[in-house]
Amino acid sequence: MTTIEGIVPVAPTAFTDGEELDLEGQQRIVDFLVDAEVDGICILANYSEQFSLTDEERHQVLTATLERAADRLPICVTTSHYSTKIAARRCRQAQELGASLVMLMPPFFGASMKVDEQGVVEYFKRVADGLEIPVMIQDAPMSTTPMTVDLMARIAREVPQVQYAKIEVPRTADKLRGLAEIAGQDLPGLFDGEEAVTLIPDFDAGARGTMTSSMIPDVLGTAARAHLRGDRAHAVEIWEEMLPLIQFENRQCGLLATKVLMKEGGILSSERTRAPFPAIHPTTRRQLVELAQRKDAFILRWAGERTGRTHIPNTTAAAGGSA
Amino acid sequence: MTTIEGIVPVAPTAFTDGEELDLEGQQRIVDFLVDAEVDGICILANYSEQFSLTDEERHQVLTATLERAADRLPICVTTSHYSTKIAARRCRQAQELGASLVMLMPPFFGASMKVDEQGVVEYFKRVADGLEIPVMIQDAPMSTTPMTVDLMARIAREVPQVQYAKIEVPRTADKLRGLAEIAGQDLPGLFDGEEAVTLIPDFDAGARGTMTSSMIPDVLGTAARAHLRGDRAHAVEIWEEMLPLIQFENRQCGLLATKVLMKEGGILSSERTRAPFPAIHPTTRRQLVELAQRKDAFILRWAGERTGRTHIPNTTAAAGGSA
Repeated sequence: MTTIEGIVPVAPTAFTDGEELDLEGQQRIVDFLVDAEVDGICILANYSEQFSLTDEERHQVLTATLERAADRLPICVTTSHYSTKIAARRCRQAQELGASLVMLMPPFFGASMKVDEQGVVEYFKRVADGLEIPVMIQDAPMSTTPMTVDLMARIAREVPQVQYAKIEVPRTADKLRGLAEIAGQDLPGLFDGEEAVTLIPDFDAGARGTMTSSMIPDVLGTAARAHLRGDRAHAVEIWEEMLPLIQFENRQCGLLATKVLMKEGGILSSERTRAPFPAIHPTTRRQLVELAQRKDAFILRWAGERTGRTHIPNTTAAAGGSA
Repeated sequence: MTTIEGIVPVAPTAFTDGEELDLEGQQRIVDFLVDAEVDGICILANYSEQFSLTDEERHQVLTATLERAADRLPICVTTSHYSTKIAARRCRQAQELGASLVMLMPPFFGASMKVDEQGVVEYFKRVADGLEIPVMIQDAPMSTTPMTVDLMARIAREVPQVQYAKIEVPRTADKLRGLAEIAGQDLPGLFDGEEAVTLIPDFDAGARGTMTSSMIPDVLGTAARAHLRGDRAHAVEIWEEMLPLIQFENRQCGLLATKVLMKEGGILSSERTRAPFPAIHPTTRRQLVELAQRKDAFILRWAGERTGRTHIPNTTAAAGGSA
């Protein structure tokens, strides 16, 4: 089995202005990402507002995405759930429907329900049991269950399906370096996350892939692949050129940046998130769009340039996020 | 509309040893609680392991419970969800199916996704919009979104459906006293939680009800109603007699205590929780059962005493919780 490398951006979940799923928009996101030449797409992640979906909606996003991807590229499905049984079932269903990879945070709930190390190991063992596609551990600050380098290396050693880890915590590079040293070939798929805001030090530390948002996946993919083939100078050049936009997304916008720019560029007809997710401030929104225009972002051009596509008129004035 | 007072215990969610729903067991829990003369039953709470259920399983527990309750007593349904839209839909469905009350934590997700005060007010406004049954705010340490007395009083003032608040945080009595003073008749249904471990100070502070586990609801209901009719001395006497058991549940067992004793008493055929929820230590389990026997707990006697009921043989030796 070949390890996926390069860039696997998170696709946002597309909503209408009424906060219902927009499955047509969801499929346009797939087309955009294929044209951006990404190495895979991750769906139902936290940046996809998975915490705002019902089980039935999860299923709809999953099937719409896999149908549209149609073997053009691998799809990574986030299957996190506190219950081992439910997480395992979600993984099996994703596999049956055609996913190439599943990603899970360790089990946790709310502010207080952490799981101890032995419990986390057993969780991943049961979740992966009988699974044929690989598993990515997601190490994110949102989880109240902490993941150490030693624990992740142990899981990779004891659970063969665990081939990937995505690290998106403070000092990600240190953790990636530790995993490369300790886990070695038990864990070939080292990824960073967090909008690629630490891409260069992370790839220097051994990352083989980055799981960013879907804002500038074309450029970040080029940077990641340059680094992977040993052309670090080119990777640095590309990344530093985009850093103002990456940093603005990371510090000012979060998951809203991609939605705003997809609305501006005509990929989505609404940039809505589900309440109570906070809306973007109109000033922040304007600054984001200006910065993305200045950097000539593909996300703003794609829909207009695409032949044979019905253009969605851009009627946005100063729309916010969720109502 | 009369405010529910007294005791509204949380029903556990019954699982088989294979961690599947046990809906027959779920309905026996209703019968037990009716015979324990409780004033209502709360389902799908955190003590019901709601964090370990799919949407479909939530629906099954809800319909099985409401069908068996059959207007014998009010059912309170926990409908918490981060998404306002999904929480609102859950409330409407609970109402349509016959629930008397819904309970929600403020929106939150994981360790980091808190919602600000204005966001929380808007959440409860939208959730309650058009709802005919009352709403209980749940103020629990599991939520990363903090609830102050002022915020809860404001919600009760601005959202007429919000008639209840259940407080289960450190210094619950202070918070209840504050709510009684500030919210007054906007919030007549003041409840405590946490296994009634602070029942007397909480009722002294203005609580009109307690939301305990289902371990000794008969006794705690008697204590609560004694306090409500002004017989504080009797309430104290009953509560202090049971305090060793209450305290053992609160500090050593959590939600497992009810399940263990229901298994021992033949109400449930399995005390299973869903992994990775930690199992009870065999020593702790033995001490709990001995203590409950010494206190002659109704939960241990009910199934055997009940006429016309098929007794489930008690075959437990030293079973644990989740595998």
